[in-house]
Amino acid sequence: MAPVKNGRLLFNEYPEGYPIPGKTTVYDESETIDLENVPLDGGFLLKVLNVSVDPYLRGKMRVDSAYSDHFLPGKPVYNLGVGVVLRSELSGVKPGDHIYGYLPFQQYVVKPSLDDYQILQNEHNLPWSAFVGVAGMPGETAYYSWKEYSSAKKGEVAFVSTAAGSVGSFIVQLAKADGLKVIASAGSDEKVAFAKSIGADVAFNYKTTDTNEVLAKEGPIDVYYDNVGGSSLDAALAHASQGARFIECGMISGYNADPPPVKNLMSIIYKEIKIFGFLITSLRPKYVDEFYREVPKLVANGTIKYLEDRTQGLQYAGHALEAVQRGTNKAKSVIIVNEE
Amino acid sequence: MAPVKNGRLLFNEYPEGYPIPGKTTVYDESETIDLENVPLDGGFLLKVLNVSVDPYLRGKMRVDSAYSDHFLPGKPVYNLGVGVVLRSELSGVKPGDHIYGYLPFQQYVVKPSLDDYQILQNEHNLPWSAFVGVAGMPGETAYYSWKEYSSAKKGEVAFVSTAAGSVGSFIVQLAKADGLKVIASAGSDEKVAFAKSIGADVAFNYKTTDTNEVLAKEGPIDVYYDNVGGSSLDAALAHASQGARFIECGMISGYNADPPPVKNLMSIIYKEIKIFGFLITSLRPKYVDEFYREVPKLVANGTIKYLEDRTQGLQYAGHALEAVQRGTNKAKSVIIVNEE
Repeated sequence: MAPVKNGRLLFNEYPEGYPIPGKTTVYDESETIDLENVPLDGGFLLKVLNVSVDPYLRGKMRVDSAYSDHFLPGKPVYNLGVGVVLRSELSGVKPGDHIYGYLPFQQYVVKPSLDDYQILQNEHNLPWSAFVGVAGMPGETAYYSWKEYSSAKKGEVAFVSTAAGSVGSFIVQLAKADGLKVIASAGSDEKVAFAKSIGADVAFNYKTTDTNEVLAKEGPIDVYYDNVGGSSLDAALAHASQGARFIECGMISGYNADPPPVKNLMSIIYKEIKIFGFLITSLRPKYVDEFYREVPKLVANGTIKYLEDRTQGLQYAGHALEAVQRGTNKAKSVIIVNEE
Repeated sequence: MAPVKNGRLLFNEYPEGYPIPGKTTVYDESETIDLENVPLDGGFLLKVLNVSVDPYLRGKMRVDSAYSDHFLPGKPVYNLGVGVVLRSELSGVKPGDHIYGYLPFQQYVVKPSLDDYQILQNEHNLPWSAFVGVAGMPGETAYYSWKEYSSAKKGEVAFVSTAAGSVGSFIVQLAKADGLKVIASAGSDEKVAFAKSIGADVAFNYKTTDTNEVLAKEGPIDVYYDNVGGSSLDAALAHASQGARFIECGMISGYNADPPPVKNLMSIIYKEIKIFGFLITSLRPKYVDEFYREVPKLVANGTIKYLEDRTQGLQYAGHALEAVQRGTNKAKSVIIVNEE
């Protein structure tokens, strides 16, 4: 079989503000790959099925990234994804196996070992894209941090930002399962409708409704799940109850511009607020077995609901990266790189 | 005996910035009291010996105070203090007893009951002023919060702001006792010298030395004890270690003016920082017995050191209130109202 194009989304330059497709990233089809003959050198060849687009990726687009690795100009963007094995020389890996881990935004890739990758069993027959969302890193993020830090008690009030996203929508459902009243914010009426459909007691579009007004009416809040920072965090501080817990997952309002100043930090003291920053890697050892035992089953039987915004084809991945930063995506963003 | 003057420091008007003596507060000698004949109505008459001046009092000078009570124009300023009983009609209270609790800034006062007051035993013969400092509320504040939230481990690095104050200087000593390296900041060379004398490994005047430079060289920091907020908090966020703990006791940089914006809040996430706001009242039940069993003894035998900035006479109390807000006091501020 003749070599085929191996399309890639390359990181091109560090952006000042939002990542712009064609500038921050460029789609490139200059490379080809001979799927039958490419040397594996003891490894395996993957056809990439999907890759995830997450808010945190903006942090990898900084040369002074606080995350351990940042994207390199001329190299592919990468994130968690799922690929299917086409060929393998590695013991324990066979064609048809599905592999989960950090994958480049490209159509095919040879990997030398299973280090940092896992073979998905998918006993509950979930769509493969679920493993980069509700049944993968974003789901783990929500699950671990809620269990570890919410100290949720029945009857309390939770405020969840980006409530239609992969993390936020899971948090809404975890909070409802724990018996809390849930106030949910999102950036479009469509997202608000989804937040309501999964159980949020109050859901509002923060672009058209004042967060402070909603929290003044529906709060005070005992748990704030923060994916936004800035004005949303400030409103949460202003309307926190005594002894509230703040779980700091993300602060997207500051990723692409200077974050709005937070004025109510004194509330931390007056209201005896506890604020928990976390990275999923530190919590994984404690909760990972429980997560993969419980969550895929609950997703499969419909107890846990999720919604995806699927982008077909890597050539549009740059647009998806921008949309997630601007919040114009409709739900958890995933790139369908190849059909199986 | 003829009536005597009963001098009082009255709260006069809510300040915009710093509290100005003669404007925010006025000293008033218009009232008199007949110490031998004033009706006690079943209570007791106190001669006030001392009252404490603490940074948090600025919060009581706001009509929208986040603290439960604020000062009322025309009424005396009040804070924790010690008084000696002159006369009593209350069972269990006798002349010569020393009483600790919230007292008005005035020379003599009749109290109806022991509710909210305690009789000091002073087994270790401390100066009575110690009970509004190292062996009172500020000491309790330091002790309780350090025990509850520092998770201090030997060899870690602590950064303590306002390190010559009543809370900060106690924290320096608690951190050293736990085997930490202590970086201390204060606002004058004299305060820096005191911080060094009680064990701080590194002490600097934040007005003449850049906090970020010191922390870059001597950090990263595992515990930050915050009495300042603003730029100090921002520097601590920038130089925190992974998993650092921040104990939020005060944010004086924002008490008298808009606080400087804090830009490094994203560090909370990247560095998995935990931030603990607290009020002493919530921690007291857990630690109060331990505190009064241990601390007065350690103060008496010199293990725990403290320094006071004593103001003689209520007529100068307004100046002390201002000095503590400006940081021009030399150490823990206490007003000596009457000699015993």
